[in-house]
Amino acid sequence: MGKYESMSRGELEQEFAAVRAEYEAIRAAGKKLDMSRGKPGFDQMDLSRDMFDMVTNETGYLNCTGTDCRNYGGLDGLIELKELFADMLGLKPDQIIVGGNSSLNMMFDTISQAMTHGFGAGPWMKQGTVKFLCPAPGYDRHFAICEYFGIEMIPVHNTPEGPDMDEVEALVKDPAVKGMWCVPKYSNPQGITYSDETVRRIAALKPAASDFRVMWDNAYAIHDLYEEGDQLLNIYDACLENGNPDLVIQFASTSKITFPGAGVAAEAASPANVKLLKHRMSFQTIGPDKLNQLRHARLFHSLGDLLAHMKRHAEILRPKFEAVLCELEQSLGGLGIAQWTKPRGGYFISLDVMDGCAKRVGQLCEEAGLVLTPAGATYPYGKDPADRNLRIAPSYPTVAELQQAAKLLCVAVRYAALEKQLG
Amino acid sequence: MGKYESMSRGELEQEFAAVRAEYEAIRAAGKKLDMSRGKPGFDQMDLSRDMFDMVTNETGYLNCTGTDCRNYGGLDGLIELKELFADMLGLKPDQIIVGGNSSLNMMFDTISQAMTHGFGAGPWMKQGTVKFLCPAPGYDRHFAICEYFGIEMIPVHNTPEGPDMDEVEALVKDPAVKGMWCVPKYSNPQGITYSDETVRRIAALKPAASDFRVMWDNAYAIHDLYEEGDQLLNIYDACLENGNPDLVIQFASTSKITFPGAGVAAEAASPANVKLLKHRMSFQTIGPDKLNQLRHARLFHSLGDLLAHMKRHAEILRPKFEAVLCELEQSLGGLGIAQWTKPRGGYFISLDVMDGCAKRVGQLCEEAGLVLTPAGATYPYGKDPADRNLRIAPSYPTVAELQQAAKLLCVAVRYAALEKQLG
Repeated sequence: MGKYESMSRGELEQEFAAVRAEYEAIRAAGKKLDMSRGKPGFDQMDLSRDMFDMVTNETGYLNCTGTDCRNYGGLDGLIELKELFADMLGLKPDQIIVGGNSSLNMMFDTISQAMTHGFGAGPWMKQGTVKFLCPAPGYDRHFAICEYFGIEMIPVHNTPEGPDMDEVEALVKDPAVKGMWCVPKYSNPQGITYSDETVRRIAALKPAASDFRVMWDNAYAIHDLYEEGDQLLNIYDACLENGNPDLVIQFASTSKITFPGAGVAAEAASPANVKLLKHRMSFQTIGPDKLNQLRHARLFHSLGDLLAHMKRHAEILRPKFEAVLCELEQSLGGLGIAQWTKPRGGYFISLDVMDGCAKRVGQLCEEAGLVLTPAGATYPYGKDPADRNLRIAPSYPTVAELQQAAKLLCVAVRYAALEKQLG
Repeated sequence: MGKYESMSRGELEQEFAAVRAEYEAIRAAGKKLDMSRGKPGFDQMDLSRDMFDMVTNETGYLNCTGTDCRNYGGLDGLIELKELFADMLGLKPDQIIVGGNSSLNMMFDTISQAMTHGFGAGPWMKQGTVKFLCPAPGYDRHFAICEYFGIEMIPVHNTPEGPDMDEVEALVKDPAVKGMWCVPKYSNPQGITYSDETVRRIAALKPAASDFRVMWDNAYAIHDLYEEGDQLLNIYDACLENGNPDLVIQFASTSKITFPGAGVAAEAASPANVKLLKHRMSFQTIGPDKLNQLRHARLFHSLGDLLAHMKRHAEILRPKFEAVLCELEQSLGGLGIAQWTKPRGGYFISLDVMDGCAKRVGQLCEEAGLVLTPAGATYPYGKDPADRNLRIAPSYPTVAELQQAAKLLCVAVRYAALEKQLG
């Protein structure tokens, strides 16, 4: 039982007065703080400063196969990057399509293709209602893609091991359910990594819809905060074992490895899926920016190079996560009014406040100068049924700013909880 | 009357023997030549060699507004490039959306959006048959986009002033006709620039379909071969005069100004169209690669810089076009078996051979080592009804190679014509 629950009304009123005073003092200080988006900070981007020297007139612009990366051609990207992403995802290079600067764009395009051309069973747009399973809380931009295309979203509860697979297995019996969003490692926003059991059960799904696809957004595949990272089972291997090679389409990018706006994205799948996707892409473009791919290929010669680079990111990010977690523990620990995740990688901390209080916390923070991801954004249609979940993005501010921001956040959580308890 | 028409059968047979001998001699030489795609050559790309020095750790990566171009953000691109494209197209900067490396991709996405979401009158995919006007000969990749989406293509005859506007005005009375492809300046493949009258009549169109859009692919907006370039009337101004601001969506890119595979593309339209397009793009991506945009902004500070740069391209391309045109004139002039365009800009020469002979010419060239754009590719569905048109792309080979290639091409044209006449 939390501390607040055991308080008398008088004690709660006294506490509320103290918390309100603290809140007003912070508000009066007029800070401008932002924990709303998973943006890498300056120092993280500076880790890739050698990128600018990778392709020059001195180094030339030919890749290892002699392709002039300035010119047209090469629909699916440079072989060097196919190999790099293949090693990152535990796949073969010919399973990789290397694209432009945005994996979100590749996901959108894949869904768009499904709407107009389907996945072997006719265009989704011509099949009546199309539904998608959305483990929630989840990534707002995934949900926005569904909303854009009028795909009905079905929230699925996230357990500490990933989506509730009992729910998922029951829901895929509906032939209108055509797919499912997954951020399988250091999930956005909870930082959960799917357990082996969860990955195996996803790989073994037998959906009623033959054109069901799992959108496997492995955005944080190598984004560990600690020496010992979470281990994610290889979904493709598990799919193969289940005779389900075409079930999953994977996505990854270097947006949070090199430059967020000028990284390289990739899409990966079974040979049959890759063939289909490439055929469709051949109508859409002549090919991605190979010069930027070449820069990446020359900066990272192997997965080992990448992993070494990610350790330097971790050194910057870990103190930021810990600053927030430390404040959460100190200010909210034992009060019984909030729970939060303690991710070992990724870009987010998920904070559950008292039911019905998330929006109020967001409002209190905003009025005192702290921008959070809008409450509700982590749920389909922006509607958190319990109005409970908040996403904290600690990557962009400095540690000092994060300490201030987390302090304000915790005061706001207490404020909203007390307000609610006092009725 | 052409020379071949006035020949007796005996003379034709004698000529055919001579042409065949010439052809066989070239074939035996076993050259490998390619005039198939509008790819800039090495020397053209080298004109932009300073691009590699534009963004380094020394220069920094902030644009004129202080945006860190490495990070996320900025859906519609850098202001510097909006201004540059606006000056190029005679528009206002806020009418420009600056994208990734491919204007084809922006065109595809725009049509894809129309299929799933329409242009104010419901998704095209839910409106039954959708038709597009396709001035022909035209650009194969435009036609491929229609084919991909199942849009029925209606060829429109191209006059020396652009598409036959009598035909166009009649055809847009069909409410299923939702759009039209245009390459208004130095058109692909004929090198035609639309006359003022043609532009005005396009701008004044009153299509039955309220969601009709002209896809105005101004790929060669500043791609003159000669000091005096063709002048294209400002279509947007003409649209405004006709109360038709939303009729036209324009496209341009630096693919044939800087690097074909690593240039910057842009889409431009009325405020209402731009608002709609940006809203849709906001679901698709967080934003384009701003570092590559910044490189471009720093290489070209003004339209004047761009135009000066294009003169250097012209110095390289002009002798290439002239080498081909010279050979065509010398080998085919007066024979009455071929006609060709003499473009003052762009990337292509269009060659019309005798009806029913284009495929045969392509085959003869291929067998002797010269790759041409496949005969028919310049028409919807790859079907040239007269089997007459061939597209010649003289940009990539050297002048010496072009002389050889054009010689072979001319021999093949004579070969096929004589073969046909001899029956």
